[in-house]
Amino acid sequence: MQTIKIGVVTTSDRASAGIYEDISGVAIINVMDEFLLNAKEYEYRCIPDVQSTIESTLKELSDEFKCDLIVTTGGTGPALRDVTTEATLAVCSKILDGFGEQMRAVSLKYVPTAILSRQTAGIRGNSLIVNLPGKPKSIKECLEAVFPAIPYCIDLIGGAYMVANEEVIKAFRPKGA
Amino acid sequence: MQTIKIGVVTTSDRASAGIYEDISGVAIINVMDEFLLNAKEYEYRCIPDVQSTIESTLKELSDEFKCDLIVTTGGTGPALRDVTTEATLAVCSKILDGFGEQMRAVSLKYVPTAILSRQTAGIRGNSLIVNLPGKPKSIKECLEAVFPAIPYCIDLIGGAYMVANEEVIKAFRPKGA
Amino acid sequence: MQTIKIGVVTTSDRASAGIYEDISGVAIINVMDEFLLNAKEYEYRCIPDVQSTIESTLKELSDEFKCDLIVTTGGTGPALRDVTTEATLAVCSKILDGFGEQMRAVSLKYVPTAILSRQTAGIRGNSLIVNLPGKPKSIKECLEAVFPAIPYCIDLIGGAYMVANEEVIKAFRPKGA
Repeated sequence: MQTIKIGVVTTSDRASAGIYEDISGVAIINVMDEFLLNAKEYEYRCIPDVQSTIESTLKELSDEFKCDLIVTTGGTGPALRDVTTEATLAVCSKILDGFGEQMRAVSLKYVPTAILSRQTAGIRGNSLIVNLPGKPKSIKECLEAVFPAIPYCIDLIGGAYMVANEEVIKAFRPKGA
Repeated sequence: MQTIKIGVVTTSDRASAGIYEDISGVAIINVMDEFLLNAKEYEYRCIPDVQSTIESTLKELSDEFKCDLIVTTGGTGPALRDVTTEATLAVCSKILDGFGEQMRAVSLKYVPTAILSRQTAGIRGNSLIVNLPGKPKSIKECLEAVFPAIPYCIDLIGGAYMVANEEVIKAFRPKGA
Repeated sequence: MQTIKIGVVTTSDRASAGIYEDISGVAIINVMDEFLLNAKEYEYRCIPDVQSTIESTLKELSDEFKCDLIVTTGGTGPALRDVTTEATLAVCSKILDGFGEQMRAVSLKYVPTAILSRQTAGIRGNSLIVNLPGKPKSIKECLEAVFPAIPYCIDLIGGAYMVANEEVIKAFRPKGA
């Protein structure tokens, strides 16, 4: 089994300043540990809500660290400091609208304010970048919804071969693919 | 309770030329009167389907009149003269795809042509701009679907504090927000 | 009944090189023959996954051949060679997000990887351009989902008047339209 490189990017002015603990980044790592049987190498960053910083972090994790998957948390709402979506759109060559649509559809079962989320996903080089919400509970709900499509997506863009922990979640690969 | 400033923009060549009455703008005001307990100050415009005119109207309502919410009706279809979406995309710094997705999903329960709508929503300064359909019945259906998220959205962008008429509709604000 | 001009564009490096047969283009023609009572004039192209070639083909089918409807198959996934979406976005003056949303929602009933599809639709001149998936089965599922809105869309952009075969599928036109 190949080792999967996963970038985890928490964008938060307060967490990056040490004002509170980053429980969201931890939540992502916990879910990935649970969902994937492969060995995992995490590159973790906790950075302020500054678009240029987020962009350079995403580029570094994709271009230099060759992450197969980069997951962000925070910064996808309508507020002025929410710029993770902008950074993601700026560094990706392809945008996968279906991720945002499905994550909003899932969150909408819990809260009507799900429509305020600008979460998206996209491709940069051989990396899939996915924006997740800020709250650990919502992170898990969203990852459960989109994870089944992630291993095949990463196959298609030339990343490492992910093996899902089928006792917890199933990855889907089309027959003959 | 704060006074809410609401811009209502009907884009229609014929209504703006006085060829028929603008029942859509009236429908929006009626729904807002029903949904919000705050005092309301409406800025109403009925203008032709000209992108530059729509853009300058949206800018004026946001930048000069400081509207918390700007609601448009008309001009979001596939026809050549439908340019309200274009104007909205041009003047907003953030686009909230979830509004369009949810409004289309709701309209799709009634008509399969809902997928032709290019309704969207976005942020300009401290204003939320939302495109609604042209027909009064569809206006109400769409507002019922997205209104619960609007007060919290306007909190996040620094607008006035909306108080929903909970006998008619509930606004949702996350706990601790 | 007017004759409907339909462009059918298969984008596939392998099919265009004759390495395998283009069953997807055939599938589209079969569905259109089944759905539409009008006489049909097909303009069929099988071309490689090269963005500039796809763009010039779409322009030719719209601007010169005056197709009412142009349907593509293939090239909407996340892989590097998938550029049909990019070409569609580049040549259209209006994008109709609702088509992509609904096609992904329909495909999602069958496969969780539906969120990887970047299928979209848009308007160029008097032509509606719709991206379909690559597989015949998925092509039919998607066309069944979006076809009911297509005749009215083409009315709105000044194309020919489509007559659906109501024993198979219903087209929807709003009353008074």
